[in-house]
Amino acid sequence: MFGGAPLFRQPKPIGQLALPDKGAYLEALRQSFNELALTEGGSVSRELEANLAAYHGTKHCVTVVNAAVGIVMLSQIFAKGRRGQVIMPAFSYRGLPHLVQWAGQMPRFCDVDTATHALDPVEVQRSIDEHTTSILAVCNYNSPGDIEGLSRIAAANGVPIFFDSVYAMGNTYQGVRLGGFGAAEVFSMHATKLLNGFEGGYITTNDDLLAATLRWQEHTHDTPAPMGATGLVRLEGTLNEAHAALALVAHRDIDLVIAENRDRYETYRAVLPQIKGIDLIPLDNEPHERFNFCMAVAEVGEPWPLSRDETVSLLRSEGAVISPYYSPPLHRSLHCPPGLQVPELPRAEALARRFLQLPVGGLVSSEDIHRLGDLLAFVNRHGGDIARRMRMS
Amino acid sequence: MFGGAPLFRQPKPIGQLALPDKGAYLEALRQSFNELALTEGGSVSRELEANLAAYHGTKHCVTVVNAAVGIVMLSQIFAKGRRGQVIMPAFSYRGLPHLVQWAGQMPRFCDVDTATHALDPVEVQRSIDEHTTSILAVCNYNSPGDIEGLSRIAAANGVPIFFDSVYAMGNTYQGVRLGGFGAAEVFSMHATKLLNGFEGGYITTNDDLLAATLRWQEHTHDTPAPMGATGLVRLEGTLNEAHAALALVAHRDIDLVIAENRDRYETYRAVLPQIKGIDLIPLDNEPHERFNFCMAVAEVGEPWPLSRDETVSLLRSEGAVISPYYSPPLHRSLHCPPGLQVPELPRAEALARRFLQLPVGGLVSSEDIHRLGDLLAFVNRHGGDIARRMRMS
Repeated sequence: MFGGAPLFRQPKPIGQLALPDKGAYLEALRQSFNELALTEGGSVSRELEANLAAYHGTKHCVTVVNAAVGIVMLSQIFAKGRRGQVIMPAFSYRGLPHLVQWAGQMPRFCDVDTATHALDPVEVQRSIDEHTTSILAVCNYNSPGDIEGLSRIAAANGVPIFFDSVYAMGNTYQGVRLGGFGAAEVFSMHATKLLNGFEGGYITTNDDLLAATLRWQEHTHDTPAPMGATGLVRLEGTLNEAHAALALVAHRDIDLVIAENRDRYETYRAVLPQIKGIDLIPLDNEPHERFNFCMAVAEVGEPWPLSRDETVSLLRSEGAVISPYYSPPLHRSLHCPPGLQVPELPRAEALARRFLQLPVGGLVSSEDIHRLGDLLAFVNRHGGDIARRMRMS
Repeated sequence: MFGGAPLFRQPKPIGQLALPDKGAYLEALRQSFNELALTEGGSVSRELEANLAAYHGTKHCVTVVNAAVGIVMLSQIFAKGRRGQVIMPAFSYRGLPHLVQWAGQMPRFCDVDTATHALDPVEVQRSIDEHTTSILAVCNYNSPGDIEGLSRIAAANGVPIFFDSVYAMGNTYQGVRLGGFGAAEVFSMHATKLLNGFEGGYITTNDDLLAATLRWQEHTHDTPAPMGATGLVRLEGTLNEAHAALALVAHRDIDLVIAENRDRYETYRAVLPQIKGIDLIPLDNEPHERFNFCMAVAEVGEPWPLSRDETVSLLRSEGAVISPYYSPPLHRSLHCPPGLQVPELPRAEALARRFLQLPVGGLVSSEDIHRLGDLLAFVNRHGGDIARRMRMS
């Protein structure tokens, strides 16, 4: 930023980007080539689905072209032909308000719990009304939220609840691996997520009819509709075999990827306490739950000399692909549908100002984290000068 | 069907399934791996887009996850926030009525021209009313239809027209290669289409603002909206690099694939005239236009002894993946939105009863076509017996 060489010549990303063995991938892909099942529903996809259902302990796993399409499909299925609202956290992924709109629904933004960053059951109860068609809860990397409380409210109000668990593959709630909670859970196989399928997604569920409905909806073959599916809009949303082959191979190494994530995370935990004002978000109930350590998100606060956004700019100029975390909140962002009346959601608004994502994943070494720590220590020592020079330019 | 061994042990498909050189593909993919651009917008995608824009002679080519998503996006952009209707042929691909509904539109089915099978301009003019948000015309493999007449009506009524050209890559209209007609054209890179990207699609256009709008809409990055795009719903619809790499390599051989298609087509043209009642659909204005010969569709009529659907069943039992062609018509199919009032569309209804798709593509040899011709000749000679036995069982 001030003319010197950046700290990292190769940018250090905030996503996983863990690549499995290329030879094993090409071997799996050869199977698809040999079967001439290049597009959908070949044996590689079926094997991947079986493996993922076993991993999550669910009856069904339905692969889809990406997690976004999974959320679109579920939002429509749960709406049962109505144009209503999907309750979702205001502190979350920017795509969510778009995805429910494709399904003819409007987002209903809801405030979150300050500790878990997930939907607050009390706020959800307040948001449910005659327009509600479903609740889209998000399991964050640091906490799945109060799944029990949310599920109780959903059941009491007769509203389906489903989970966006794209950052939480392998994580547990009350000791049980995510996948089987609510009506369904949605996971991602984007290269930046834990399981790399180049891109792709899957839905886990224990509901036979829902699984059959999803399988029917995700293509436009001339097959008869499962019970209750008449009137659903369909699409071409199946997972391609080229993705399934990569994910199939990557899934074999998933414990190794988590272990490497954990090593990096422990390095952050050793380095950051020496830097006052940059603190990792705690992992909720950590000794009793499992985590995939796929992200490292830190709070920027007193006595740190720069604002969160100044810190992001500075570190980016050094080649660390730092990013704000869930910021701005959805109801104050350009992803909020124009004209939608939104209340103040003070916790989401406050959280969205506080955090930044630190580099993680297969391209970040322990040494990189130590160098980043040294840089942060330098910034802290010279914070006043740096802030003045940044604010002048 | 009657207990003997099938004619073809390896099923003979009706899609292209042309695979480029695997080594060249892996080399292109290596570039993506090296750049760590595994998901979207890497140099391989950009090179593919540049090559396709040059191929089609258009200013822009925007790749998308599949052609279906391209149609969804364009339907929404042209609707400008209204909930209206998209005029489309009733004799076409079964996904179309679904795709416009994701964009908040209803299909308005329209009758087609008996020779080109494309939208009839007179019928389109009759269908335009205050609900019309756009016209989705389809360029079939055998004819692009009356693009000039349709475009004139679209312009006169101030309604955007765009083309589903997924079967017509490389084909011409009045000597000009498709790609730059209407507001935009949509092409497919599904493995069954001319250009194999495993799956995928792209949109060609000469409209700078439309291209910028599509690029903005097809992901949810925090970028400001292009002029007029506020209120558009966005999605995660970009093409993955793994697809772009295959399509990039496949595109180098596209003329060769067309030449091989043509050889097969000429074999059909030599064989089928000896079988009375099975006639290839003519290629419209053939000597003056170019074709990709990606499909072989035949009419089943007098004096053929079996019905179209009986013929499909019989040939399928022999390992030829014969299929009816655009049948049933969309307004009489389970893809018609429940409760939608639809008129009689006599030409679409009659056409949908007449045709079957014959095996084509990289897995079908000239010898296969001769063997299929021998089988058809046998069926013709023993048609009465076969029909009786089929109708008894």
